[in-house]
Amino acid sequence: MSATFVCPAPIATRERIVLGHGSGGRLSAELLRDVFLPLFSNPMLDRMDDQAIFEIGRERVAFTTDSFVVKPLIFPGGDIGSLAVHGTINDLAMGGARPLFLSAAFILEEGFSTDMLRRIASSMAKAAADAGVAIVTGDTKVVERGKGDGLFINTTGIGIVPEGVQLSASYARPGDRVILSGAIGDHGIAILAQRDGLEFETEIESDSAPLHELVAGMLAVSSEIRCLRDPTRGGLSSALNEIAATSQVSMHIEESKILVRDDVKGACELLGLDPLYVANEGKLVAIVAPAIADRVVDAMRRNLRGRDAAIIGTVGDQHAGLVTMKTAFGSTRIVDLLAGDQLPRIC
Amino acid sequence: MSATFVCPAPIATRERIVLGHGSGGRLSAELLRDVFLPLFSNPMLDRMDDQAIFEIGRERVAFTTDSFVVKPLIFPGGDIGSLAVHGTINDLAMGGARPLFLSAAFILEEGFSTDMLRRIASSMAKAAADAGVAIVTGDTKVVERGKGDGLFINTTGIGIVPEGVQLSASYARPGDRVILSGAIGDHGIAILAQRDGLEFETEIESDSAPLHELVAGMLAVSSEIRCLRDPTRGGLSSALNEIAATSQVSMHIEESKILVRDDVKGACELLGLDPLYVANEGKLVAIVAPAIADRVVDAMRRNLRGRDAAIIGTVGDQHAGLVTMKTAFGSTRIVDLLAGDQLPRIC
Repeated sequence: MSATFVCPAPIATRERIVLGHGSGGRLSAELLRDVFLPLFSNPMLDRMDDQAIFEIGRERVAFTTDSFVVKPLIFPGGDIGSLAVHGTINDLAMGGARPLFLSAAFILEEGFSTDMLRRIASSMAKAAADAGVAIVTGDTKVVERGKGDGLFINTTGIGIVPEGVQLSASYARPGDRVILSGAIGDHGIAILAQRDGLEFETEIESDSAPLHELVAGMLAVSSEIRCLRDPTRGGLSSALNEIAATSQVSMHIEESKILVRDDVKGACELLGLDPLYVANEGKLVAIVAPAIADRVVDAMRRNLRGRDAAIIGTVGDQHAGLVTMKTAFGSTRIVDLLAGDQLPRIC
Repeated sequence: MSATFVCPAPIATRERIVLGHGSGGRLSAELLRDVFLPLFSNPMLDRMDDQAIFEIGRERVAFTTDSFVVKPLIFPGGDIGSLAVHGTINDLAMGGARPLFLSAAFILEEGFSTDMLRRIASSMAKAAADAGVAIVTGDTKVVERGKGDGLFINTTGIGIVPEGVQLSASYARPGDRVILSGAIGDHGIAILAQRDGLEFETEIESDSAPLHELVAGMLAVSSEIRCLRDPTRGGLSSALNEIAATSQVSMHIEESKILVRDDVKGACELLGLDPLYVANEGKLVAIVAPAIADRVVDAMRRNLRGRDAAIIGTVGDQHAGLVTMKTAFGSTRIVDLLAGDQLPRIC
């Protein structure tokens, strides 16, 4: 094991951490590649999925962690508490797992309102109860005023992967279909509008929601679902690029098939944002075998969280890792990873 | 379930979070009692142990989380990375579990040194490899300059509890013996000395170390070990008070049996600190049936981490929750929970 903890030489990674290192885009990938993976390397981590999966007895257990630093703490459609529950449930669900247990760890800044903490903890408790998961262990730390930002929450989750389910970002094959569960960009724009005090004709709400029941319905159709991802930080583009790179395939999607609410589209135009890069917290992308794609979409549409599900593209074998899109104007563009952050602290 | 997420009325808890809420003492207990427990209540959480234990298939799985906000990040005997690995391993070990897997989640402040991050991640990787656990999943978030404090780390751990092992803070019975694994106060004084630039004749090092092998050796002696706790935040006094309160027993310890290194004792006198309240990161307290106490101590002494193990007191039935100590002068004093914090950000 000794080779696993030798300090690797610094490569391309910048000398100082910048906000973009937390973006889910190219800088995040570099930090992972240059700092964490060489040190922590093991087969589970190296899979580069959103959750580790290992066996305990005869069961396959999914295990995933996320810290939440979203700002503001409360936003239309949710708050840091419900988001912390949904986010970790969804990372388990993307491994095909039925979520069971969560831990909750709080880093509080001195001076934070106890009532606000109670409100956010209530929201966590409700989100967990609604989703049928239990928060079974926790931790609280307090840092001095000016050394935190009100409240950060870590949730770590455990779930069970049903027999026969095998999902991984490395399983996409040429010919597979790309399915998107609904409209993109709601969460990111809801946060941004709240943060900057922007007013639109209609209030844009975060789509923050638990997706494990949607996933269970999809897995009931067929075990030939290859891969699931929730397009959170870095948006749809990051999710597709990660899958394409990990599976060494290309992907081609069609802009006309990708649903964006009119108000979200308007806000993106106003703000100069591309909805492909804006975070979602209640959507998923599925890569599925072509023969079952229509049936999977039908199953998704029977669930509230997937009622706008659609096939948005196909997996190809042109350039490994390349994602392209046929635009609404008929041209083709490359959908790349962003280097940095469109919107910091979105989750 | 609906009653579980109704906001409880604010009781005694202060309106604003203070540093003492993170102390592991009385204010931490109040926050738990007034905010978190009424909202998240479930049988696993309500046990009030340092880890949740649940069944997956035929296995009993231990699950625990801790965020680390220690300052400074690097100190004699360790750093935030090794501490984050040892701390979570030890919370699993205190449930009798063999630790297997850890998650690692980083909250970085913009501008943090990438080399420092690499150094700390290397230290985590080494600590994990040395202890035989794997870091299998992770997360990185970045907050703006001035909204964090360099680096916070959350580790969450999973372990397996061997058959027949049943430990809980609620199992102490009158007549049981109280065993302490070694000298107290090293970690807290090492941190404080480093933070305040104090110089002592000898450098005081943190005792940060993984204790799962020590525990395995103890459990091999007998299954009549009732309870294990690592006296971290709040020190030995908090650990004993928690057990006494949870088991509804009294405890009586003898100061002359409690080992404190001379330099730690000197530093405590100089700084006006009571070693009973100073944090440790490589020590444990065990409550064991009287018939096996000597054999457990012998087993502990065969392990480097327990070579100074000793029986320091007994469990009684006088006043439920009361911990008393026969002092070196022969008098008896009450060993109470501290209200606030002797030393903030010790872990």
